[in-house]
Amino acid sequence: MKLLIINPNISESLSDLIEQEARLSISNDTELTVLTAPFGVAYIETRAEAQIAGYAVMQLAAENYMYYDAIIVAAFGDPGLDALREILPIPVIGMTEAALASASQLGGKVSIIAISQRIQAWYKETVEKEGFSLKLASIRALDETLADISLVQENQGTRLIQLANEAIKQDGADVLILAGAPLAGLARSVRSQLPVPALDGVSCAVKQAEVLVQLYPDQSSRLGSYASPPKKGCKGLSTELSNLIGREIFVE
Amino acid sequence: MKLLIINPNISESLSDLIEQEARLSISNDTELTVLTAPFGVAYIETRAEAQIAGYAVMQLAAENYMYYDAIIVAAFGDPGLDALREILPIPVIGMTEAALASASQLGGKVSIIAISQRIQAWYKETVEKEGFSLKLASIRALDETLADISLVQENQGTRLIQLANEAIKQDGADVLILAGAPLAGLARSVRSQLPVPALDGVSCAVKQAEVLVQLYPDQSSRLGSYASPPKKGCKGLSTELSNLIGREIFVE
Amino acid sequence: MKLLIINPNISESLSDLIEQEARLSISNDTELTVLTAPFGVAYIETRAEAQIAGYAVMQLAAENYMYYDAIIVAAFGDPGLDALREILPIPVIGMTEAALASASQLGGKVSIIAISQRIQAWYKETVEKEGFSLKLASIRALDETLADISLVQENQGTRLIQLANEAIKQDGADVLILAGAPLAGLARSVRSQLPVPALDGVSCAVKQAEVLVQLYPDQSSRLGSYASPPKKGCKGLSTELSNLIGREIFVE
Amino acid sequence: MKLLIINPNISESLSDLIEQEARLSISNDTELTVLTAPFGVAYIETRAEAQIAGYAVMQLAAENYMYYDAIIVAAFGDPGLDALREILPIPVIGMTEAALASASQLGGKVSIIAISQRIQAWYKETVEKEGFSLKLASIRALDETLADISLVQENQGTRLIQLANEAIKQDGADVLILAGAPLAGLARSVRSQLPVPALDGVSCAVKQAEVLVQLYPDQSSRLGSYASPPKKGCKGLSTELSNLIGREIFVE
Amino acid sequence: MKLLIINPNISESLSDLIEQEARLSISNDTELTVLTAPFGVAYIETRAEAQIAGYAVMQLAAENYMYYDAIIVAAFGDPGLDALREILPIPVIGMTEAALASASQLGGKVSIIAISQRIQAWYKETVEKEGFSLKLASIRALDETLADISLVQENQGTRLIQLANEAIKQDGADVLILAGAPLAGLARSVRSQLPVPALDGVSCAVKQAEVLVQLYPDQSSRLGSYASPPKKGCKGLSTELSNLIGREIFVE
Amino acid sequence: MKLLIINPNISESLSDLIEQEARLSISNDTELTVLTAPFGVAYIETRAEAQIAGYAVMQLAAENYMYYDAIIVAAFGDPGLDALREILPIPVIGMTEAALASASQLGGKVSIIAISQRIQAWYKETVEKEGFSLKLASIRALDETLADISLVQENQGTRLIQLANEAIKQDGADVLILAGAPLAGLARSVRSQLPVPALDGVSCAVKQAEVLVQLYPDQSSRLGSYASPPKKGCKGLSTELSNLIGREIFVE
Repeated sequence: MKLLIINPNISESLSDLIEQEARLSISNDTELTVLTAPFGVAYIETRAEAQIAGYAVMQLAAENYMYYDAIIVAAFGDPGLDALREILPIPVIGMTEAALASASQLGGKVSIIAISQRIQAWYKETVEKEGFSLKLASIRALDETLADISLVQENQGTRLIQLANEAIKQDGADVLILAGAPLAGLARSVRSQLPVPALDGVSCAVKQAEVLVQLYPDQSSRLGSYASPPKKGCKGLSTELSNLIGREIFVE
Repeated sequence: MKLLIINPNISESLSDLIEQEARLSISNDTELTVLTAPFGVAYIETRAEAQIAGYAVMQLAAENYMYYDAIIVAAFGDPGLDALREILPIPVIGMTEAALASASQLGGKVSIIAISQRIQAWYKETVEKEGFSLKLASIRALDETLADISLVQENQGTRLIQLANEAIKQDGADVLILAGAPLAGLARSVRSQLPVPALDGVSCAVKQAEVLVQLYPDQSSRLGSYASPPKKGCKGLSTELSNLIGREIFVE
Repeated sequence: MKLLIINPNISESLSDLIEQEARLSISNDTELTVLTAPFGVAYIETRAEAQIAGYAVMQLAAENYMYYDAIIVAAFGDPGLDALREILPIPVIGMTEAALASASQLGGKVSIIAISQRIQAWYKETVEKEGFSLKLASIRALDETLADISLVQENQGTRLIQLANEAIKQDGADVLILAGAPLAGLARSVRSQLPVPALDGVSCAVKQAEVLVQLYPDQSSRLGSYASPPKKGCKGLSTELSNLIGREIFVE
Repeated sequence: MKLLIINPNISESLSDLIEQEARLSISNDTELTVLTAPFGVAYIETRAEAQIAGYAVMQLAAENYMYYDAIIVAAFGDPGLDALREILPIPVIGMTEAALASASQLGGKVSIIAISQRIQAWYKETVEKEGFSLKLASIRALDETLADISLVQENQGTRLIQLANEAIKQDGADVLILAGAPLAGLARSVRSQLPVPALDGVSCAVKQAEVLVQLYPDQSSRLGSYASPPKKGCKGLSTELSNLIGREIFVE
Repeated sequence: MKLLIINPNISESLSDLIEQEARLSISNDTELTVLTAPFGVAYIETRAEAQIAGYAVMQLAAENYMYYDAIIVAAFGDPGLDALREILPIPVIGMTEAALASASQLGGKVSIIAISQRIQAWYKETVEKEGFSLKLASIRALDETLADISLVQENQGTRLIQLANEAIKQDGADVLILAGAPLAGLARSVRSQLPVPALDGVSCAVKQAEVLVQLYPDQSSRLGSYASPPKKGCKGLSTELSNLIGREIFVE
Repeated sequence: MKLLIINPNISESLSDLIEQEARLSISNDTELTVLTAPFGVAYIETRAEAQIAGYAVMQLAAENYMYYDAIIVAAFGDPGLDALREILPIPVIGMTEAALASASQLGGKVSIIAISQRIQAWYKETVEKEGFSLKLASIRALDETLADISLVQENQGTRLIQLANEAIKQDGADVLILAGAPLAGLARSVRSQLPVPALDGVSCAVKQAEVLVQLYPDQSSRLGSYASPPKKGCKGLSTELSNLIGREIFVE
């Protein structure tokens, strides 16, 4: 099985962190490729940045999907996820959705631990859009400006565990998701210090991708709201994206 | 007052239709400019097409916002609306949201009449995301493939009125929105044939834009989830967009 | 355009405050009249007081609507609003609904800042009844007994700004509504001290009334739940109200 | 125990129908008085009519409550219920709420069978306002104009049973409420013809009133949103209502 | 009228407490029997314990229902309630549901005061399952380990009143339920110390049982989701339960 | 990895059907055991039958869990699932929850196709209890009495496909779950005839069990509402269950 992970952030260091946790999670016969967004921002925290990232992800996916069995969008908040599902014939997995789908099965209410105050509104809207708001206990986040996003686990580990415990005691969380690519791998390392199950978006996404490829390899719908968009005129798109969206050049 | 209307579709003929209804709606001292998306699809109906359009709208807005008092995103479904609100210091109005805000004040439950079956899922998700799902009676849509999007009012007028009546009698609609840029102006022309108030997205958006400029000309927030995104590295964006999003060039 | 503002409270001093803010908000060609409820209480805070006020508003409206293009019910909580919409052929605007419709378009979650603890339950039920509960971040209120309702802005300005900041930081408010007739005009004067947009119920209601008159001058429905009530026997109503409700004298 | 039933409609014939069913439902030691609204409409179907009725009920209640242990508002839709609960020190029971509270305990989803199409919006809003919308399967209603409201049981009995069966089979109703004063007693007479439990608003209200008087005779709250409204100026109210609401005469 | 109260806990001392409050609540002509679960745990606080208790309650009910007019399940959380309603032809009342149905009619939002932190999740899920979540202000609970469940009222009375006041002031409770069999009778004894109405699960259940027997003595449904389960093979059940569920012995 | 599948129904033929589909779904290194409920009914369709089955599942699980890495409850409706999660230190997977978690990641709204009208209420309540109601498009079910539950796929295949198409076209389903143990394997065989993705509860549960064992092998919580129930007296339970629940023999 061949999985493509797309990092919607432009940071290669985040891609490395994602790849490291993903390699610890994949099955023996899974091959992994990680690609980094060609344009956008260093670390997505807002709706505007997610809007840009979604388009970057669409371009990378359109150019590469034909060589893979499934694609993972590796930013919590799942930029571009719905768009890819409409146009691609293979499973597309998002970190938020995969983590929530896994957490659901450990029972009860889920809290998300995040790395910045600002990122919470975008996360909350993603949880709502994906239909999981009834399972959400809370989102709690670090409240300091982060000097270096790649060192957040190292520098803020204690504070993150403290937030997790607040979510359990004050918000009724039964399960935790340590969210965001910069926290990839943290759940694995601090799990024994936490009194309830804690999941990681990257490992959940990888395992759920493997499940979907086995359960339902051909994701393309012929009806419903995820069927391929109807053929129509388009302009200014890359050839690959144009082939998926429009299939003909537009002249008014 | 200077309003910029951005048509997120690439069709100039739709821009003309939008401009025509907008000119009938503006106040005497309002100046109007309509711009058309430089890339994308002829008529947006899906999440994927809206994802592309949102990025096209961001680019146009970043290049032009400094000359206007408010910007209107003129596709029902409001592609890019939230993103623009975060990064721009002026009011940004969406057709869906403006029509729902106006319809709310005519009382009761609102039905949306749309031009294609496929477009309904995207509209429904927009209504939910914008917090208006408690006011939605139903979405009803034409069920034939449209030969020519610019002739839909002419060819499908009778069927659209029939859908409106079904929404009133079967779904409990107290107010109707005749939705989508291709139906711009229809509410004005068929209003007298309908037994409940019927609104048009373009005229609502224009009037609400005028209201917001008068009520709250400086939209920029310094706190909350619509404050300007924090300054961070970015890559591959137009200079204008980069100035709004990242403000410095990213080198990892 | 001629607007009638009905103050559902019996206080003339509140009518003056409302009129002052309304005059700052109207367009050049709008004429304004403010009437004060002939019976009821000095300042409505409860369901019981709103029930009385709703009937007082109905009587004033029935006697005067024929001379105006739209009517504004000028108490946050919108007493009698739905009733007027059923029986009158012109737009009827409520301060709560107009403020929420406007705030919706500034994006995100809305908090309401109110002048007494007691008033919060009534406001919350109004927001829910009008279908805006998904957009409500919180209601926060002064917690002292008010010596003089007409001096609340002067005496409690600092505390109101403090409540506004708590709503932003603790409740996730992106937009504020400074609510209630006694706060009319406060948003205008403290706006620059607040880090997110702040709206005023009176100015929103006036602007939304102007919009509705332009968008949809004839509000009467022939079908749906806001059509005129079916003709039926009535007793003990004023002639004007009887004409709108029953249209014949009841003899059992 | 002394119960006062207030018929918010002005029809004495409805008062008779209500009294007849109520007398079949009361316990041996319960005394019953039925009063009819002094002003209003023959049969309430709309928000506007309910707004008027709510004020009429307040006046009757204020004049009479001191002689009774509990008051029943005997129109489905419960006009004035919340207002009375705030100002009176005895239990106040509504037909809608009492029927839903009873139906809840027969299990599952509840459908309401009503006597006119128009009345459905008002009923639905009442169910929502009273917090029972999660238990509502549907509201179904007669669709013909009623020649004589007092003969609706006789003339429309078969159609009402048909609506009840549709609610069970198509809407998933586990319990039925045959709603509205004009249907008082119908549940008792057609119960054996219906395949699920069917309740009557009048009998439920009477039994729940007896329960509340036994469980909690002194309903007055000193805190919370149902505490007596704070003392304030008022004008133009009856002496009895003024005593409950304002307690002093207002002079600005 | 003959009522059977089943205590789903195995503690005879709780049965005594329940019986004591029930005897203070019943009408003169009501006869009362209290039975204690033959297997299970001393005091139910979790989903697992409720799952066991539900089966124990089914067994006791199947053996005894034919001698009674109604059955009360006397643990807050209502273990087995839905199951009994499906299989028995008489009314079945739960303490949670009866208390919520009664509290609903005292108006506004309801808070539940409970005896342990752990029990809150189970209570919350019960309130949601029974369709009352829109009326719930909060659940607040003692936070110490209880030395002796039968002395909780004596030892923790002051703390319980403190929790009640917090629910009123911080959560907006208009009505309180002092929940759980170990608190049976507490509402009666502390009522005068609380500023809002406070109810007791046992007394509410007894009064609501009397109401249902009078309103709707034959609870059996022939259609809907509470009709008797379809006849099918079963194995390993007591003869009495087998008669209600399966009606024939299963041989594969 | 060793998985234990518990069939909560007493039918060995259903266990065979479940095992057949499960063996097609497991990974190479997964070992599988299927056990059948020792008491209960042939095929669970109601709340009462699920209440019995939940206790039977608890007993089997308590006796066997120590030899396995995860347990699957193999009846759609997930009887006993929450109870097992509280008391066992290994992952416990339900067919409904696993299928919904998988379906979530294929995007959009999900419809469940079921084998009897009666079973729908129980399924719907399960979906709600597990927090997935926002993702549910509809439940559609066969409407004939089934002659032989083990032949339902053979006899009703065409009708099931028809129901699936109705769910897509009329209810807006983007994904289907062919639900219930008697339909085990049907999704695999009819997938190519359906225009949207279709999942099977058994295969989803098996794959999700494998994921959870890999992601989070030790499910035991020390805090939160899924921590082991507090130690307390119990009576009449099997030694194995008593060890998990009470850990000491109860003597009052």
